[in-house]
Amino acid sequence: MIKMINGGICAAKGFTAGGLHAGIKKDNSQKDLAMIYCEKKCRAAALFTTNKVKAAPILVSKNHLSDDTAQAIIVNSGNANACTGNGLEIAEKMCEITAEALGINKEDVIVASTGVIGQELSAEPFEKSIPVLSKQLGANEQSGNNAVEAIMTTDTFPKQYAAEFELDGKKCTIGAMAKGSGMIHPNMATMLAFITTDVNISHYLLERALCRLNELTFNSISVDGDTSTNDMVCIMSSGLSDNSEIVSVESEDFKGFVAALHEVMTYMAREMARDGEGATKLIECYIWNAPDDLSANSIAKSVISSSLVKAAIGAADANWGRILCAIGYAEGEFDINEVEVTLGSSKGRVTVCKNGTGVLFSEEEATAILSENEVEISIDLHHSANVAARAFGCDLTQEYVRINADYRS
Amino acid sequence: MIKMINGGICAAKGFTAGGLHAGIKKDNSQKDLAMIYCEKKCRAAALFTTNKVKAAPILVSKNHLSDDTAQAIIVNSGNANACTGNGLEIAEKMCEITAEALGINKEDVIVASTGVIGQELSAEPFEKSIPVLSKQLGANEQSGNNAVEAIMTTDTFPKQYAAEFELDGKKCTIGAMAKGSGMIHPNMATMLAFITTDVNISHYLLERALCRLNELTFNSISVDGDTSTNDMVCIMSSGLSDNSEIVSVESEDFKGFVAALHEVMTYMAREMARDGEGATKLIECYIWNAPDDLSANSIAKSVISSSLVKAAIGAADANWGRILCAIGYAEGEFDINEVEVTLGSSKGRVTVCKNGTGVLFSEEEATAILSENEVEISIDLHHSANVAARAFGCDLTQEYVRINADYRS
Repeated sequence: MIKMINGGICAAKGFTAGGLHAGIKKDNSQKDLAMIYCEKKCRAAALFTTNKVKAAPILVSKNHLSDDTAQAIIVNSGNANACTGNGLEIAEKMCEITAEALGINKEDVIVASTGVIGQELSAEPFEKSIPVLSKQLGANEQSGNNAVEAIMTTDTFPKQYAAEFELDGKKCTIGAMAKGSGMIHPNMATMLAFITTDVNISHYLLERALCRLNELTFNSISVDGDTSTNDMVCIMSSGLSDNSEIVSVESEDFKGFVAALHEVMTYMAREMARDGEGATKLIECYIWNAPDDLSANSIAKSVISSSLVKAAIGAADANWGRILCAIGYAEGEFDINEVEVTLGSSKGRVTVCKNGTGVLFSEEEATAILSENEVEISIDLHHSANVAARAFGCDLTQEYVRINADYRS
Repeated sequence: MIKMINGGICAAKGFTAGGLHAGIKKDNSQKDLAMIYCEKKCRAAALFTTNKVKAAPILVSKNHLSDDTAQAIIVNSGNANACTGNGLEIAEKMCEITAEALGINKEDVIVASTGVIGQELSAEPFEKSIPVLSKQLGANEQSGNNAVEAIMTTDTFPKQYAAEFELDGKKCTIGAMAKGSGMIHPNMATMLAFITTDVNISHYLLERALCRLNELTFNSISVDGDTSTNDMVCIMSSGLSDNSEIVSVESEDFKGFVAALHEVMTYMAREMARDGEGATKLIECYIWNAPDDLSANSIAKSVISSSLVKAAIGAADANWGRILCAIGYAEGEFDINEVEVTLGSSKGRVTVCKNGTGVLFSEEEATAILSENEVEISIDLHHSANVAARAFGCDLTQEYVRINADYRS
């Protein structure tokens, strides 16, 4: 049984965290520097943006993770540390100061940044604030809250989760924090997400679980089709839960760990989609009975990414022709004449299209269904191969445009 | 020399056109039915949407063009005649009634529709209005205006153009009309565009010119990333200009024809991008010194399609980091560290990024440049292969979302 608990990123044994205002964001009521620390060196795995433009912290973190271990994470918001002359120098410096303050090796520090691209950072806020922050780390709820607040940019609420479960008779925990919002599109480890666990697991299986679940969760989100330069998802395991080390992909313990991690990552993915820039609704697109994985995923992502579908759902308008249109330009081999589309929410379900053709439905009922803040688009391809997929998105509103028109000012 | 002239779709010898309100759109001050007719049977070529969902008129027109000839075009706006039970029946009916009214074969009629997807059309407005329209056809400017107005949906202005030039000592003409606006993305013969010419040219070369130039013009537009179910670009040549038939791809006459057609199609593509839904600006993205065509085109389209770039340009914000980010997730092999980005307009030019890194520039100057209603993003990859490309787009505004939130009502 997997149980939701409090504590976020600090919930797993061995981990502490904190966050404060270091002076990178102009508004000094806003935190902009977060630290996560583990009392022992962790096994660690991460996935990074596939954008050819990689921010400096991505390059430094990749390098520092080459030995598959890490002990701390330092993250700033307000500046992406990307595409500037001194980027690598600053990212290295952030790791050095963190390592010195915590008494660990700088190669065991993971660094991440999020915010505006192309503006130089100075080392000064880090020199001043990292030592202070390192002394404020805690394992209580407030410490986790401080850390997750410090990585927010246009996020309207913090995203964190923790789950408790048993493996090998031992209590185990996974905690997570993330930031999402704009520049989010399924093409890599999307956005910043940090996951901590006390499960004792081999590095190989830790990485394998992360990669596989990333495809089903973070890589299945689309907010605006823009793949960022700074995206990273990272997991650290302290092994402090005392379960005997998970080493086999066939073991019940591995399945249990994957189930718990899946729950945590799905929760975080849904929260990120829900909080897409300007969004008022979470949209989940389910594909049923597709001929193969490629078709299933490409249709789900095509529908969830369509500006026209997103704008219609935002206005609670059951303009299913746009859904069919977005299915039609997805990759993959499937028969459009078999497509059935159903819209759903807590207010009920209504089928709007069968055999690729519109069916009579109550517009009033459809509007009521689409007026909820969690909406589901179910697409059945009626293929005997029965492949399923899911993607997470949000509606497109005028607010998205307003936010992104003057982001730098 | 290519000269711009009046007359639009009726400018070329042999062609007449007209448009009226047939009752498909609710507002009876809005025209919704257009006809183009040629006094003799024409060589004709067309490109159709690559969307797997193809509207009924696309299927019928493809079929009718299988003999490479056509004599009339019938187009309605206000309803896409897509994804409904009676679509093929209605599209065939539109051709039949048109053929009967004009005294031609129904296989020589091309049919197109644009508007909302998934609502059934009835034959009644066509039965009533096509015979009336067929008697109103004319070759004067007003007739062309009526036709182009009748194909508009969310377009804010009609798009037409005509060019006069000489081939083989004879005066030749190309005319065009188009509708653009939403659901426009580079993946096929985008939107509805109709081109007429009196040039005498083999069908093979007519089609070849259309295909090649379509890649450089209509397929290089992106408004919103949605590839429609109804897109079509179609050219008809009457051969009435009396030039000796163009049969060789190497001939000066073919080059002259291609140059004139390129001018017409570029003009139309720019006008369609400029009038993207909610747009206030035309954005042209030029790629210079790319290693190959794939990279050049994919970078140009990636930049022009980025919601974040489009929102920034709309607000005259020189947020070049988003441009670099969009370059970074484009397909192709190129060195991001060689990238130079320059913003330009009639107000001047400013380089904002060199060697993949920001350079100092005057924000005030950049804002002045981006405040114009035609803006240029030039990207130099500094590769010795010197491949170039261009794409056409527009800014993203709150108005785009407003238009698409309640399109059906």
